[in-house]
Amino acid sequence: MVTNARLQVIGILVLGVFLLPTMTTAQQLALTLMPVPASVQSGTGSLRVDSSFSVALSGHTEPRLDRAVARFLRQLARQTALPLSLKPVKAAKATLVVQTDHASKEIQEVGEDESYVLEVGANGAKLTAPTVLGTLRGLQTFLQLVDVSPDGFAAPSVTIQDKPRFPWRGLMIDSARHFIPLEVIRRNLDGMEAIKMNVFHWHLSENQGFRVESKKFPKLHEMGSDDLYYTQDEMRELIAYARDRGIRVVPEFDMPGHSTAWFVGHPELASGKGPYEIERKWGIFDAAMDPTSEKVYKFLDEFIGGMVRIFTDHFFHIGGDEVNGKEWDANPKIQTFMKTHGIKNNQALQAYFSERVQRLVVKHGKAVVGWDEVLVPGVPKDIVIQSWRGQASLAQAAKQSYRGILSNGYYLDLGWPAARHYAVDPMDGAAASLSPEEKQRILGGEACMWAEYVNPENLDSRIWPRTAAIADRLWSLQEVRDPASMYARLDFVSARLEWLGLAHRTYYHRMLQRIAGPAPPAEFAALRTLADLVEPVKDYTRSQTAPAEATSLTPMNRVVDAIPLESDAGRHFGELVNQFLASACRDAATEARLRAQFTVWRENDAKLQPLAQRSFLVKEVAATSQDLSALGTAGLAALDAIAKAQPAPDAWKAQQLAIIEQLKKPKAQLLLMPAPAVQKLIEAAASGGACAAPKP
Amino acid sequence: MVTNARLQVIGILVLGVFLLPTMTTAQQLALTLMPVPASVQSGTGSLRVDSSFSVALSGHTEPRLDRAVARFLRQLARQTALPLSLKPVKAAKATLVVQTDHASKEIQEVGEDESYVLEVGANGAKLTAPTVLGTLRGLQTFLQLVDVSPDGFAAPSVTIQDKPRFPWRGLMIDSARHFIPLEVIRRNLDGMEAIKMNVFHWHLSENQGFRVESKKFPKLHEMGSDDLYYTQDEMRELIAYARDRGIRVVPEFDMPGHSTAWFVGHPELASGKGPYEIERKWGIFDAAMDPTSEKVYKFLDEFIGGMVRIFTDHFFHIGGDEVNGKEWDANPKIQTFMKTHGIKNNQALQAYFSERVQRLVVKHGKAVVGWDEVLVPGVPKDIVIQSWRGQASLAQAAKQSYRGILSNGYYLDLGWPAARHYAVDPMDGAAASLSPEEKQRILGGEACMWAEYVNPENLDSRIWPRTAAIADRLWSLQEVRDPASMYARLDFVSARLEWLGLAHRTYYHRMLQRIAGPAPPAEFAALRTLADLVEPVKDYTRSQTAPAEATSLTPMNRVVDAIPLESDAGRHFGELVNQFLASACRDAATEARLRAQFTVWRENDAKLQPLAQRSFLVKEVAATSQDLSALGTAGLAALDAIAKAQPAPDAWKAQQLAIIEQLKKPKAQLLLMPAPAVQKLIEAAASGGACAAPKP
Repeated sequence: MVTNARLQVIGILVLGVFLLPTMTTAQQLALTLMPVPASVQSGTGSLRVDSSFSVALSGHTEPRLDRAVARFLRQLARQTALPLSLKPVKAAKATLVVQTDHASKEIQEVGEDESYVLEVGANGAKLTAPTVLGTLRGLQTFLQLVDVSPDGFAAPSVTIQDKPRFPWRGLMIDSARHFIPLEVIRRNLDGMEAIKMNVFHWHLSENQGFRVESKKFPKLHEMGSDDLYYTQDEMRELIAYARDRGIRVVPEFDMPGHSTAWFVGHPELASGKGPYEIERKWGIFDAAMDPTSEKVYKFLDEFIGGMVRIFTDHFFHIGGDEVNGKEWDANPKIQTFMKTHGIKNNQALQAYFSERVQRLVVKHGKAVVGWDEVLVPGVPKDIVIQSWRGQASLAQAAKQSYRGILSNGYYLDLGWPAARHYAVDPMDGAAASLSPEEKQRILGGEACMWAEYVNPENLDSRIWPRTAAIADRLWSLQEVRDPASMYARLDFVSARLEWLGLAHRTYYHRMLQRIAGPAPPAEFAALRTLADLVEPVKDYTRSQTAPAEATSLTPMNRVVDAIPLESDAGRHFGELVNQFLASACRDAATEARLRAQFTVWRENDAKLQPLAQRSFLVKEVAATSQDLSALGTAGLAALDAIAKAQPAPDAWKAQQLAIIEQLKKPKAQLLLMPAPAVQKLIEAAASGGACAAPKP
Repeated sequence: MVTNARLQVIGILVLGVFLLPTMTTAQQLALTLMPVPASVQSGTGSLRVDSSFSVALSGHTEPRLDRAVARFLRQLARQTALPLSLKPVKAAKATLVVQTDHASKEIQEVGEDESYVLEVGANGAKLTAPTVLGTLRGLQTFLQLVDVSPDGFAAPSVTIQDKPRFPWRGLMIDSARHFIPLEVIRRNLDGMEAIKMNVFHWHLSENQGFRVESKKFPKLHEMGSDDLYYTQDEMRELIAYARDRGIRVVPEFDMPGHSTAWFVGHPELASGKGPYEIERKWGIFDAAMDPTSEKVYKFLDEFIGGMVRIFTDHFFHIGGDEVNGKEWDANPKIQTFMKTHGIKNNQALQAYFSERVQRLVVKHGKAVVGWDEVLVPGVPKDIVIQSWRGQASLAQAAKQSYRGILSNGYYLDLGWPAARHYAVDPMDGAAASLSPEEKQRILGGEACMWAEYVNPENLDSRIWPRTAAIADRLWSLQEVRDPASMYARLDFVSARLEWLGLAHRTYYHRMLQRIAGPAPPAEFAALRTLADLVEPVKDYTRSQTAPAEATSLTPMNRVVDAIPLESDAGRHFGELVNQFLASACRDAATEARLRAQFTVWRENDAKLQPLAQRSFLVKEVAATSQDLSALGTAGLAALDAIAKAQPAPDAWKAQQLAIIEQLKKPKAQLLLMPAPAVQKLIEAAASGGACAAPKP
């Protein structure tokens, strides 16, 4: 019996040794299953997966299951290139028998049973689940089990009993700031299914665009979208597509703020005078709906009434975040209303608005989801708070009997490494001390992909693979937390996601080619070396340092747009330095590898220069390229100093650290990721002979 | 004025220096235009291409032109990531004005005018063409001109006058042996448009599959296709798709041989007794239509009558190749018929069949294309011979007043390097001595993609980029022949083709990941190093060495299926060795590079071993991996021997050459490409001090 705790330990053990042929099945599983199942019991031997592989359905049947099996077989065929028959067979002849006990709900609900049991033996496999949702989850686990073996494709013998820790495991995609075509949304839903996420939160309106066809109020999409919107039929098809994958679709129409695009066609909804245009800049804007206008509520009543006929989920997201109140302050009618009704401030005015809109949502048979701001005294209990503020806010809500989901810590656009997201748990902090009943109210979390600097070309790379780490957090047991195991599994899952059509890896080379133009291999390699070692500036620094003329129409073809948000090369380099320091700087092989890397870096700028002269997109990173070469020189100097086996002089240390400080400063909105690790080497050189075995 | 001869010279010059910032516009053009235009006159300065870029249409208009411009703008937006408006503008405001004088033919004909003039200046560009076809060609040239520059995206000032050398520039795809989905066909048509090819020859029936829906004879596709066929609507849509791109679609139904799949549903057409099954093996088979049966001609009459309502092109390909005659020999009824009608042998019987079928094709308003075999005395003159035999056969036909196209030398499945295809010209050999009038009958050529070892996953990589070299041969002037210039341009075009969605590069990494399974980066890199240096065995060796149990259903997931058919790394290594030898082995920098490569090779097998133990697909290439390491050792020994500056002993030479002979032998159907270049080094070492400056 391999418990999760055991899997964690294995995760640590295998870092560096990876899949050795001598590894046990359980050890190998520890590297491939993401999320980690609740219980894994490994057996002996394995199930051969060849062209004769087949699936039978038993128990409850429905067309969705047939489609799921066909999709499963197509994916298995892609992974293996085996010519599999997609036709179902009888249970007695099937390699994999799928037993589903019952249907799941017609409209998928929060907290439905998603459990399954998967037994794989040398002679066959059986997947058993109480509901269709459990079957969908189990099929994905089976796909992760199949891989090359010494004798062909195979799945190891194993018994897995599994269910999720949280019932709400979501991904929000903002397709309002930049429009995202449906084909891109669909492949991201495929990715969500693969890692067992179950909520697609679709952010559909913003200052920069209103992305939904409204039959009742066509000026909304006709004037507010630049003709980039989803038709009602397309949205219905997408919801069906998501349901096939066990994914709920929660639409978000952000109000009363974040709503300029509504006002282009309907200025009468706004608190200001108008006219309004589609916003091209980024930031928080003044435009807000008029909470004192009965016309606004009549409009929203009809609008919501139309939308709930498309979006069948029980929940309807009304946003509610970031209203700066300036239009309210400037509008005498609104000020008069507030005085008349004893509304003391803008927060109270927003609470009044939220309460009115919530009643409309309830009238149409739905429940509200809103950002932290909607939680004000008196709000009905059938509401879900989506917290961008953190666990404390979530715990506070839970104590007041409100349900909530965590998004603080899961903002994909901030450019954090996967490990940092992975360390965030909805039950940490203030939530840890809640009563069991209160804890039940914390439903899970959502990764959020805000789209200021995201478009259809690089979206996949901003979401994947990091979102899989968040999915692991939300499905697996709380004690599954080892980042080394997570990264090993993330690498595996990331490669698998490519078979679903996600472009999170392939886009990168292509964007670098655009940046380089026609280039000899050595110059292109120099660009790649640099690009592999930088990351975009973090948090909101990119917006804060953007040129004044930047808009939503600014081309996203720069190096900062092309590189992944987390540099694998930078991370691996940091691990190498730690390894060297842990050996008290005595490991000659590691030193040689570091020296080789530093030498490549030092010489890289000269190789890149011709390209920087030809391409404006390379020229932009010329200073960063010089920094990388300087970092290589500094690294070599540090290694030389360490080799002297006596503490380097203070003056040398100060000089070198001053250089590193310069290299740490972002240029062209890029961070040179290996700089802090080189700093460690300099400090080690200064600390004493053979670097005095410092703690890495 | 830069003539083609000049471009050639430039092509040679730039090899190794590539796009220097000091290069002239003309020099840069020499690297990016493929095919090479008939005339290029370079100007000064360049046209900036930014978000304001726009296109206006003037002169003749039709919806196809609107779609072409929208497609052009979408492609330009993909190449640059500029947010371009797809709406047409007025001529006075447009960056690019497109003047089309006349419509082209409703059904595209052989030899229609495809000429155009493209003038690009600092303030705007103008494309002028007599017909829509010329406009389509000119738009593709413009796309090749746009690239990054020091100040943004730009197209150089230039005047191009252009027209094709041959009117028939085709690509045949066999989607019968392995079915190829339409989306894959479509992206290959996009690729054809980019390099100005104008005939898609669609090989639709084979022993292994009948891929077309027949309303009249549904058993053809129902029983002969494994449910993998194109519906009539799909084919009509594809033909429209091709017409939009200025591409004719010529269907091929191969008969009387290559036709087993017809007989599964219609055994009455065959010369043997049947019953027949879809053929799963590769090769030439006995099954053939019965040329003596009037039922066969009645059937074909109705069948062709149905097909010409879908396939609108003037030409209809009836195959006609490779009939072994065994079923005819064994059928007494056929033998009696031959005696009765004075038909002396099987060749004459096939001529009788061809003549009857040609009459049917003519009756339905079409003209026949057939392989060499259909050219027998008395065949009508309105026929096109597709020669798999060579220029002599083509010249022979031309002398007899038949038109022809060349495919000998253009078989993509044989795995030849691009340079070898590029060296083949329809006007070489016997064709060179034809009279001008006879030469007119040689219409061009077709690249042929036979599909024994091709499926939707690796098809693109088998076609591209090598087909672009053949397209260059068929469009550009005959004297444009320099392989170095061709390879430089091919690299550029290959990268550009990726923006069209072709997967010829991206598939490779994914297939290697499948082969490796989860692997640490160093092991995967070792697999990649090996895979980059091998090619599949050439010509028909793969079929000849296939295991007895191999069929059309055998999974194509081996290294031999994954690697490109031409190894860039192998070619570059060969160039490096030549460079070293040309320096009389005195160039220390080149020697250092060679030594570094040999060292990597020598150590590569040890890195790959763990993977070979875990994956059966890597295990298959374990011997080749050992060979690569041995080659590295041999290379280092050769360099050491050269460094001694005296001739190496004969015994050493013999021993080393014996090793190389072993390493040249294919294993796992793979060739180790750098072996012959290492052999050159060994011979140089033996030839004398400092390698005595041998001719490379």
